[in-house]
Amino acid sequence: MLLTMPMQGRSGKNGYRAIRKTRDWINIQPLQTGGVLDEAAMTALMEYADGYAICDYCNGCLDTIPNPPVADLTREILPAFLGCHSVRLTTGAREGKFAVFHAMTRPGDTIVVDANRHYSTYVAAERNGLKVVEVPNSGYPEYRIDVRDYIPLIERHRPALLLLTYPDGNYGNLPDARLLGTIARKYDVPLLINGAYAVGRLPVSLAEIGADFIVASAHKSMAASGPLGLLGMHRKWEERLLRKSERYGGKEIEFLGCTARGAGVVTLMASMTRLQERVQAWDRQVAKVQWFCGEMQTLGFTALGESAHRHDLVAFESPRLYEISQTRREKGYFLYKELKKRHIWGIRPGQTRRFKVSTFAAGQEELQVVVDAFRDIIDRFA
Amino acid sequence: MLLTMPMQGRSGKNGYRAIRKTRDWINIQPLQTGGVLDEAAMTALMEYADGYAICDYCNGCLDTIPNPPVADLTREILPAFLGCHSVRLTTGAREGKFAVFHAMTRPGDTIVVDANRHYSTYVAAERNGLKVVEVPNSGYPEYRIDVRDYIPLIERHRPALLLLTYPDGNYGNLPDARLLGTIARKYDVPLLINGAYAVGRLPVSLAEIGADFIVASAHKSMAASGPLGLLGMHRKWEERLLRKSERYGGKEIEFLGCTARGAGVVTLMASMTRLQERVQAWDRQVAKVQWFCGEMQTLGFTALGESAHRHDLVAFESPRLYEISQTRREKGYFLYKELKKRHIWGIRPGQTRRFKVSTFAAGQEELQVVVDAFRDIIDRFA
Repeated sequence: MLLTMPMQGRSGKNGYRAIRKTRDWINIQPLQTGGVLDEAAMTALMEYADGYAICDYCNGCLDTIPNPPVADLTREILPAFLGCHSVRLTTGAREGKFAVFHAMTRPGDTIVVDANRHYSTYVAAERNGLKVVEVPNSGYPEYRIDVRDYIPLIERHRPALLLLTYPDGNYGNLPDARLLGTIARKYDVPLLINGAYAVGRLPVSLAEIGADFIVASAHKSMAASGPLGLLGMHRKWEERLLRKSERYGGKEIEFLGCTARGAGVVTLMASMTRLQERVQAWDRQVAKVQWFCGEMQTLGFTALGESAHRHDLVAFESPRLYEISQTRREKGYFLYKELKKRHIWGIRPGQTRRFKVSTFAAGQEELQVVVDAFRDIIDRFA
Repeated sequence: MLLTMPMQGRSGKNGYRAIRKTRDWINIQPLQTGGVLDEAAMTALMEYADGYAICDYCNGCLDTIPNPPVADLTREILPAFLGCHSVRLTTGAREGKFAVFHAMTRPGDTIVVDANRHYSTYVAAERNGLKVVEVPNSGYPEYRIDVRDYIPLIERHRPALLLLTYPDGNYGNLPDARLLGTIARKYDVPLLINGAYAVGRLPVSLAEIGADFIVASAHKSMAASGPLGLLGMHRKWEERLLRKSERYGGKEIEFLGCTARGAGVVTLMASMTRLQERVQAWDRQVAKVQWFCGEMQTLGFTALGESAHRHDLVAFESPRLYEISQTRREKGYFLYKELKKRHIWGIRPGQTRRFKVSTFAAGQEELQVVVDAFRDIIDRFA
């Protein structure tokens, strides 16, 4: 007996057929808006689709493959892009965090992180047996992280490492990373920047921040196919992070000898020029999100996070939609369904009282469609 | 200043353009022959190319996504395919090995592995601070692993875990995994099967072997785009391997909450029917490699590894090619170049004295072309 995949979308006699309906919709899903491939990246993906295709000319080390030019990417282009000495490909930001924790701490050590950190920061710490101490945020409605609040926790806990989420994935807050860099150096504690929502969207430089490590998410913010991320580091940690196997001199232990051995790497290559251009145009992204927040405010929605919002990811409070949901048979799901009808993608099913969106991928005209949709939904059901 | 990727293949004003010349060649590269995508998998890849596209309907856990049907894949189809209770997606076989080592051992513990193991087995053990004791192989020319040789090492070292490479990636030897399963149970030591060159090529069942864990490589042997692998396990280890975060009840610590969050997963889905069919046709693959070994023998090449070869991966000794290489200006590189001219892909540049190939992807007619090419090269240069 053959076990076949259930049919999805178009059916086919050979089982699973992939159809992703949401691909051409207006996308405001925060996870997805920075990861959309353009035509060049799609071509690259198709050329290197087959398993281990990227290894055609590998001589035992992913980072030195000459064709496709992974060597140029990892040794020249990405270090310049991140403002750091060395970069390694990873399978995502969390895997980079785990590698740094694993190399820089011992089980039982304490790390100090911001309260807005991603769940995977906590889980990566758990996997390493670490104690996690959190710098609280300012609470409703801004949830700000004041990096000076790291100081008493550093003094009390003598942590092995600091981590700052820049920006966080709930409110799109951009704390003062550079000031924390100064604090970290003063107390001589290594600082890791989680730039999963920054690198590939806005200009970020590890050197300018004055931190020790930075992780990035290529599938989240660098127009790449996943799973793919980056770990950038200061020269002084190379020996520790890039420690080689005692029996295989070319294999780095923290990366198990090789990491993102797939087509994602060539999609990132194909996207680099576009990324270099788009981070330079970050001001326009900020203007766009601020305009969007203003429009949403006129509909009675409140943007959470730092006022004068500075990142495309933004959470809204929408009591009117919540009130409507209480009158609907589908309850909270009505909003998701109404937006889906209009081919607007990205509000989590069930959410009405609070939801988060990203204005990164949509142009101003598309965002106008989104605003009009919210207005229409309120007018129709209120 | 923009840093652009160097031009490759077709040049373009926007930097890197991907062209993979080797895609349509006869491929005998052992890493690559099991990872070739068919049209259905290519379609799936393109639909889910964008970063985090697979997460459209995610509710916080990759394994339960209903569309694309990751839930069916990981909860029903893959456990049946691997003959085990639970399967988790990983980013490759080595990441699965690391997860098992990490969950099942403590730094300083000893594990017993076969001497034919992949380098990443050793590096994953190093990353976990483990001592590695190796069961020797029989040496030239068969390099057999007799699994009874695990017994004295188990008795002497009281290992935390056993690992068997089934088959290994140097000779394509298939040791008696089932007998080792019996031995492991008798001594009450958990057994991990590295099936990177087995799962997706030939029928393998964790239950039939009687082992505790199995790792697979989807980009190596399951017609999927990488990085993607599987970790299958017996029910009794679920609690330990699938331990949840104390603060995020849906997030599994050993997998950092989520693993292969990319298009590779849908390529595997699209390939499942084909994989189920091709493992049933494994006898034809064995017949093909045995025919190929016979033809190569008539040219003066010796197949290494188990005589009566039982896997498509096979290493050859070829003293005649080595002698020729000594007379050529390009030395060992002449063979690679001669094959490349004939659009035959897969011999490592520089290798002549010994090289390994895989007959898995090439049909018999294509393999005849390969045999003819070797004959022609010998005739021309000898």
